[in-house]
Amino acid sequence: MGNKINESHLQALVSEAFERGEAHPDCWGEVADYIPELARIKREQFAISVALDDGRVLSAGDCETGFSIQSISKVFTLSIALGRIGDSLWKRVGREPSGNPFDSVMKLEREEGKPRNPFINAGAIVTTDALLSGHAPKETLSEIIQFVRNAAEDDDIHINKKVAASEKATGYRNLALAHYLRSYDNLRNEPDFTLGVYYHQCAIQMTTIQLARAGRFLASLKDAPRLIAPSKVRSLNALMMTCGQYDGSGEFAYRVGLPSKSGVGGGLLIIAPRKGAIAIWSPGLNEQGNSKMGTWAAERLSRDWNWGVFG
Amino acid sequence: MGNKINESHLQALVSEAFERGEAHPDCWGEVADYIPELARIKREQFAISVALDDGRVLSAGDCETGFSIQSISKVFTLSIALGRIGDSLWKRVGREPSGNPFDSVMKLEREEGKPRNPFINAGAIVTTDALLSGHAPKETLSEIIQFVRNAAEDDDIHINKKVAASEKATGYRNLALAHYLRSYDNLRNEPDFTLGVYYHQCAIQMTTIQLARAGRFLASLKDAPRLIAPSKVRSLNALMMTCGQYDGSGEFAYRVGLPSKSGVGGGLLIIAPRKGAIAIWSPGLNEQGNSKMGTWAAERLSRDWNWGVFG
Amino acid sequence: MGNKINESHLQALVSEAFERGEAHPDCWGEVADYIPELARIKREQFAISVALDDGRVLSAGDCETGFSIQSISKVFTLSIALGRIGDSLWKRVGREPSGNPFDSVMKLEREEGKPRNPFINAGAIVTTDALLSGHAPKETLSEIIQFVRNAAEDDDIHINKKVAASEKATGYRNLALAHYLRSYDNLRNEPDFTLGVYYHQCAIQMTTIQLARAGRFLASLKDAPRLIAPSKVRSLNALMMTCGQYDGSGEFAYRVGLPSKSGVGGGLLIIAPRKGAIAIWSPGLNEQGNSKMGTWAAERLSRDWNWGVFG
Amino acid sequence: MGNKINESHLQALVSEAFERGEAHPDCWGEVADYIPELARIKREQFAISVALDDGRVLSAGDCETGFSIQSISKVFTLSIALGRIGDSLWKRVGREPSGNPFDSVMKLEREEGKPRNPFINAGAIVTTDALLSGHAPKETLSEIIQFVRNAAEDDDIHINKKVAASEKATGYRNLALAHYLRSYDNLRNEPDFTLGVYYHQCAIQMTTIQLARAGRFLASLKDAPRLIAPSKVRSLNALMMTCGQYDGSGEFAYRVGLPSKSGVGGGLLIIAPRKGAIAIWSPGLNEQGNSKMGTWAAERLSRDWNWGVFG
Repeated sequence: MGNKINESHLQALVSEAFERGEAHPDCWGEVADYIPELARIKREQFAISVALDDGRVLSAGDCETGFSIQSISKVFTLSIALGRIGDSLWKRVGREPSGNPFDSVMKLEREEGKPRNPFINAGAIVTTDALLSGHAPKETLSEIIQFVRNAAEDDDIHINKKVAASEKATGYRNLALAHYLRSYDNLRNEPDFTLGVYYHQCAIQMTTIQLARAGRFLASLKDAPRLIAPSKVRSLNALMMTCGQYDGSGEFAYRVGLPSKSGVGGGLLIIAPRKGAIAIWSPGLNEQGNSKMGTWAAERLSRDWNWGVFG
Repeated sequence: MGNKINESHLQALVSEAFERGEAHPDCWGEVADYIPELARIKREQFAISVALDDGRVLSAGDCETGFSIQSISKVFTLSIALGRIGDSLWKRVGREPSGNPFDSVMKLEREEGKPRNPFINAGAIVTTDALLSGHAPKETLSEIIQFVRNAAEDDDIHINKKVAASEKATGYRNLALAHYLRSYDNLRNEPDFTLGVYYHQCAIQMTTIQLARAGRFLASLKDAPRLIAPSKVRSLNALMMTCGQYDGSGEFAYRVGLPSKSGVGGGLLIIAPRKGAIAIWSPGLNEQGNSKMGTWAAERLSRDWNWGVFG
Repeated sequence: MGNKINESHLQALVSEAFERGEAHPDCWGEVADYIPELARIKREQFAISVALDDGRVLSAGDCETGFSIQSISKVFTLSIALGRIGDSLWKRVGREPSGNPFDSVMKLEREEGKPRNPFINAGAIVTTDALLSGHAPKETLSEIIQFVRNAAEDDDIHINKKVAASEKATGYRNLALAHYLRSYDNLRNEPDFTLGVYYHQCAIQMTTIQLARAGRFLASLKDAPRLIAPSKVRSLNALMMTCGQYDGSGEFAYRVGLPSKSGVGGGLLIIAPRKGAIAIWSPGLNEQGNSKMGTWAAERLSRDWNWGVFG
Repeated sequence: MGNKINESHLQALVSEAFERGEAHPDCWGEVADYIPELARIKREQFAISVALDDGRVLSAGDCETGFSIQSISKVFTLSIALGRIGDSLWKRVGREPSGNPFDSVMKLEREEGKPRNPFINAGAIVTTDALLSGHAPKETLSEIIQFVRNAAEDDDIHINKKVAASEKATGYRNLALAHYLRSYDNLRNEPDFTLGVYYHQCAIQMTTIQLARAGRFLASLKDAPRLIAPSKVRSLNALMMTCGQYDGSGEFAYRVGLPSKSGVGGGLLIIAPRKGAIAIWSPGLNEQGNSKMGTWAAERLSRDWNWGVFG
C-alpha cells in the first residue's frame, strides 16, 4: 500500500497533468481575471514540491517559477497573530466554515460584523488589522515577510509590487468589507493602512520549493524552525481543514483528507502532519476559486502516498 | 507526551466532570426540549467508553445506560448508502459545511433542493430516502438496525418506540423539509415512509459501550468488522470532520481535532483513526445542539492522549 | 385629459393586445406549468371587464370564459378574516412586502414563522387557517364561496374540483410551508384541513364579469354590497398596493398606480377607489408570476382613464 | 365625513401629541444615535405643516425649527434624476420594496449590485452618483439645493455642514455600500465624491413649513412650481408608497394610506395628491427608523381629513 515517495513519482504526476490538459483543456480551469496582473499568467503551468520529514525537498515541473501566494498568506498572518496576540483574536473572528463564497458580506451582516473564520477575506482583514495595531504598516509588513522567510529559511522571498498595486486598484470588494467591519468597530486602523498591508501580504511571490519549505513548521517536520507553539500548529491545521478552501473546504477534505490553504494565484499549501508539506501551483482555478489541476494532483498524491489523516 | 491510556484516566475524567457540574451547573448545558420523550432525561449524567486498537473497551460513568443516538444514526445510514448506492448519492446531497443550524431551510432554498451535506437534517432525510427506494420501510429499518448491530457485534441494540413516536408527533420541521425536498424532486418516497424510517433510526438506543464498539469500523481498528471499503471509511471521517457537529463543526475540529458526530440525545461518537473509537454521553447540550460536558471531555481526552489528527 | 370610459375603448385594447401578441408572441408570457390542470390552458386568450360606479359593467374579449382565480382568492379570505376575526389576525401575519418570491421560506425562517404579509402563500395559508378555527373545512369553504357570490351578487360561481385536485397533488411546497408554520405554532389545524380549504379557494372559477362585480365592494362603488367596514376596505387596498403582486408589487404600483391582486391563473383584480373595479384575464405570466398581457393592459387603462391614485 | 381642515385642528393634534408623550414617554420613540450631531437633538419636539391646494400653509408646533431632512432628500435627488436622466436610471436601480433594513447589503449581494429601489441607502447613492456623472461635486450639490429651494420657493434653505461632517466621519456603512456598488461597476465616480454629495444632501436643514412647501409639486397642487412632468410625479408617489419608509412601508401604507418619505432626523414628507403636502417632524424614531410620534400624527391626520388614497 502506498507508492514510493520520490521525485520520479512527482515527475510522473506532472507529465500526467499535462497529458490531461492536452486531452481536455478545461482540466486546467480558468485563470482568475479580477486582478489584472494575475489575469495575464499563462494557464498551462504546473509545479509541485514536497518538503519531507528527513529534510529533503522533492520537486517537479515549474518549481522555480515565482507565483503570487495570495490567500495562502492568511496562514502566515494567522500564525503570527496566534503567536503574538493569542486567543483574544477569537473575540473578533470566528472559527466556523462560512458556507458562502470568499468575499461574501451576507454572513457578516447576519453575524454583526464578526467574520466566520480567518480564511475568508473579511476574517483575514481583521487578522491583519489585529497585527497592525500599534505598529506602522511598513513594520507589520516587514514582520510578515520576515516570518515567511524564517519559515522557509530563505531570504530570497519578495513582494511583487505590481501585483500589490493591481490588487489595490481593483479591490473595491475588500474596501467594502473593511468599511463594513469598521461600522461594527471590528477594524481598528484606517482601512487604507490595513488593506495596504493586506494587499502586500497577498502579493508575496514564492516558488513551490520556497512554499513547501515555509510550510514545514505546520507539518511539525523535524528540521522545521519552531515558530509557534505545537498546540497552535494543531489549531492552524484544524482551521485549514474546515475553512482553508472557502466554500470548497468540505470537498477538499473529502477528496484529499489533509489541511490546506489555497490562493487565487493558483497556489496550494497542503500539510501532512509529521510527514510532509506540499506546495502545488497551477494557475487555472475551479468554480470555488481553488487551483483545478492542483486539486487533482493533491488528491492523487494523498492517495498514492497514503498521507490522508482520516485513516 | 500524553497520559496513560487506561480506565483510571477515564474514571478521573468522569469525577472531574461531576465536580465541574457541581461547581458550575451550567457546565452541564441544557437538555433538548423539542422532543418530549427526551426532555424528561436527567441532565446530570455522564458516560464514556473507548474501543482501542488492541480490542479492549475502556469505560467509566453511566456506560450501561441506554440513550437515544439521534443524529449519530446519520453516520450509519450514510455508511450503508455509500456502500450500497455509492457515489451517485452525491448527485442528491452535497459535501460542504452549511454554515446554518441543523434544521435550516434557507440554504436549501438557495441551492434548489440539494442539501449541503448528509449530516444536516435535510441531507440525512435524502440519504434515508435513497436507502428506501425499492424497499419497504420495515425492510430498510431492519437493514439499518442490523448494520448497527453488526458494527457493534452486539444484537442487544433496539429502537425506543416511544421516542420514535414522540419525534413523529412533533416533527413538523422535518415534515416541512421533506415536502420541500419533494417540491424539488429530491424525495422519491412518500414523506411518511421516509420520515417513518428516519424517526426510527434516530430512536435507536445504545450505551456508550455499544456505540464505541459500533464506531470501530470507522477508526479502522484491527478487530473491527469490515463493513465498507477503506476509501469510504476515510470519506466518512472527512465528512464528520467538516460537518459532523452542525454549525459547531469548525469549533470542534479546532478544539478536539478528530472526526465526530453528535446527536441531540447528548451522544458523541468520535473517531481517532487506527487508535480508537470514543463514545461519550451527557444529555445537556450547548448552543449548537451538541453535548456540552461531552465536548469538554472530548477535548480533554484528545489532548491527554495526543490523539488529534493535526500533529 | 383621459379617454372616454366606454366599451369600445376596451374593444380597442383587446384588439391591440392580439396584434401585439401576433407581432411578438412573447408578449403573451408563459402559462404556469406547475399545476397540471392550468398548464393546458391556451395562452392566447384575453378578457377585460370593468364595473363602474354607475352600475354598468363594461366588457370585451373572452369575458364569459371561466378561469381559475387562484391567489386572487386571498383578497376574499382576508376580507372575511378582517371582518370576522379582526386585528388579532395581525399577531400571526405581518403587513410588509417580502422582497422574495411568492413561495419562499427564507423570510419565514428569519422571522420565526410569522409570514411577511397575507398575500404570499405562507400568509394566505395562515389566514385560511384562522378562518378555519372552530369550523369544519366544508363550512369554511362554504363561507368563502358564499362571500364571493355575495360580492358578485351572482350565485353561478363554483369551484373547479379538477383544479383543486391538481393543486393538491403537486402542492409539496405549500405542504412544506404549512408544516413549517406549524413548527412555529402558527398553524392551528391539521395541514390537510387548512390546505384542503386553501386549494379549493384557489380553484374558484370566475369570468372577468363576475370578478369585476366581486371587486366592487373594494372600490366602494355605489351599488356594491357592503360586506366589510370602510376602514377595512381601505386597509385591504393598502395591502394590495404594497404586496398584491408578489415581488413585482413595486413595479405594478409604479406602472399602474392602483391596488391589485394577481393569480397564477392569469387573472388580475384591480381597484380604482370610487371609480371602478377592473378584472383582466390572460393566462400567460411574466417573470414575477403575474399576467403579462394583463399587466400591459392594466397600465394602458389606468393611464387612458387617468385612474391612478397618485395624482 | 372628515374634520375641518384648519390650523386649530393641527394645534389640537400637537397638544395631544405632548399629552401622549407625557403619559407614556416611549410614545416619543428614540432619537437616532449613529450620527453624533443628530444624537444631541431633544426628543420632545413636534411640528406639523400642511400646504393646501388653495395656497395656504397651515402649521402648528415647532414649525420654525430647522431639522435635518436626511433621507427625505432622496425624493428630491430622484426627482432631479428622473427629470434629467430619465428611465435609463432604472438600469442601475430597481423599483421593488427590499424587505430589509435601510442599510442592508444582503439583497445587494443576491442581486449583483443593483439596489432594490432608490430609497434605500444603496439606491440613493447610485442615484446621486448618476446625477454626478460629468459634473463636479460642488456643481451637483448646488443643483440639488437649488432644486429644493425652487420647490419650496424659498432661498433660505441651507446645508448644515456640521451634520454633513458628522455623517462623513461615521459613514462606514455607506462607504461599504459605495465600494460594494463599485465592485459591480454600479458606481461611476470616486466614492469620496459621490458620498461627499450624498452626505451634504442628507444634511439639508429645513423647517416643516419649508418642507411642506417643497412637497407641493409632488401633490400637484395648483400653485406648485412645475419641476418635473406629471407622469414622473405619479411615479415618484408610487415609489414613496411602496418603498418610502424602508421596512415599515407596508405598515405605513396600511395605517396612513398616503405616499411618504421618512428621514432619520425625524422628518416625514407625506403627499396627498391634489389635496396637500404634509411635513411632520418629531425626532424620536420607531423600530424601523421612522418618526414615531410623526407616524401617529400622520395616521390621525389622514383619517381625520379622509385624505387616504385607498377610498
